[in-house]
Amino acid sequence: MRKIRLVIEYDGTAYRGWQIQKKELMTVQGIIEDRISGLTGEKLRVIGASRTDAGVHAFGQVAAFRTKSRLDTETIKRALNALLPLDIRIIDVFEAEDSFSPRYSAVRKSYFYVVANQRESTAFLFRYAWLVQQPLDLKSMIKASKVLIGTHDFSTFMGTGSSIKNTVREIFSLNIEKFNQIDFMTVGMTGEFIKISIEADGFLRHMVRNIVGTLVETGRGNFSESSMMEILAARNRRLAGPTAPPNGLYLEKIIY
Amino acid sequence: MRKIRLVIEYDGTAYRGWQIQKKELMTVQGIIEDRISGLTGEKLRVIGASRTDAGVHAFGQVAAFRTKSRLDTETIKRALNALLPLDIRIIDVFEAEDSFSPRYSAVRKSYFYVVANQRESTAFLFRYAWLVQQPLDLKSMIKASKVLIGTHDFSTFMGTGSSIKNTVREIFSLNIEKFNQIDFMTVGMTGEFIKISIEADGFLRHMVRNIVGTLVETGRGNFSESSMMEILAARNRRLAGPTAPPNGLYLEKIIY
Repeated sequence: MRKIRLVIEYDGTAYRGWQIQKKELMTVQGIIEDRISGLTGEKLRVIGASRTDAGVHAFGQVAAFRTKSRLDTETIKRALNALLPLDIRIIDVFEAEDSFSPRYSAVRKSYFYVVANQRESTAFLFRYAWLVQQPLDLKSMIKASKVLIGTHDFSTFMGTGSSIKNTVREIFSLNIEKFNQIDFMTVGMTGEFIKISIEADGFLRHMVRNIVGTLVETGRGNFSESSMMEILAARNRRLAGPTAPPNGLYLEKIIY
Repeated sequence: MRKIRLVIEYDGTAYRGWQIQKKELMTVQGIIEDRISGLTGEKLRVIGASRTDAGVHAFGQVAAFRTKSRLDTETIKRALNALLPLDIRIIDVFEAEDSFSPRYSAVRKSYFYVVANQRESTAFLFRYAWLVQQPLDLKSMIKASKVLIGTHDFSTFMGTGSSIKNTVREIFSLNIEKFNQIDFMTVGMTGEFIKISIEADGFLRHMVRNIVGTLVETGRGNFSESSMMEILAARNRRLAGPTAPPNGLYLEKIIY
């Protein structure tokens, strides 16, 4: 049996997230499994690195599967891209060691989140950013974010319903930058955006979205710059801000 | 009765085009009528300037309706944007003369079409551009396009099923330019694009898409630069290229 590693890009808008659910629900994992089975004629399971939520996008999701197929990696890539819907693309296909686990072999993951911080939305924006109309104080957000860098118990930012025991993670970097998108297709996706990028050894459920929700509350002035330390230390989800909507979130890269 | 003029932006992906159809089908006109009725309590008809096809986008569709409502234009704009789905946005609301017709008062309309001319697609591209993987010869396309500028019978480029009698239109300008999109949200919608912009006094059914399909065949080398003159003169749809897909087409602006 070979093990094949995939790097996958998707626009999450149309899907109920990565994780396979009931047969009738469209999930990225479900569709990829179905197309690989169609290609190799095997019943198989594709294991992904990150269970992205419904509406979350990915530029570098990683997944793996075992197969008896002898198709070379370039053929697998071409064939899958021909079979998959246009909002799911296979970026890379590699041979992997049998011990490779997309989830447990990962040493670093990065996500970024896009906030559209402008008065009016455009018709092209809602799938790809969270519209926050009130002007945000970037300096407070940056100052508050510094507290999160390093090794901490992040249970304050963990979504309810997670069964994970170890809630300690290390955030290697957290960058917040403003950018002005001049044009998307020369007209549509324009305006002021804030991009929040986080790199860590792993993430708890909803961790990025809860951190972003808390940073946005800070930028709005509802939390003081210094509250972040107490919020983090409290290990209490109720003290943090709301969960930012999924559509602004992008799984960027996973490093092994 | 007042007459109100709307300027509307929409992402056409989720809709069966502008024109209202059977009740159960999602159309932009149908949804806007429904929301305006909800706002004013009247049964009314919204008349649009251009019947964009399913999947076609708009930055400046124009529509008008008659109402007894006394709501001021700013309130209408705000209320409609709160009621409408996020992929339909009201950009402007004006009082209009009773004689104003979105369709017949128009003196100029412009559309543009985006071709993604690159080897590989991204997961974020298919809603907004037509992927043509074979490298296109821009010079031939530009040369062939010059023939179309001016007043001509464009029946060669008219989609079947149109009942229009007068097939003469004047194209004021037709520009073809290559652009390199560095980043969309800093990663997704990148690559080489060709933007074809056409301004005319009006357009026949599928005219832009049929012109684009013919220009792309020219760029591929399947039509010589000089064939365009014969194709136009033939007034025969069969001689032109295929109809370009709707997702790359944008209604840009209508001038009155």
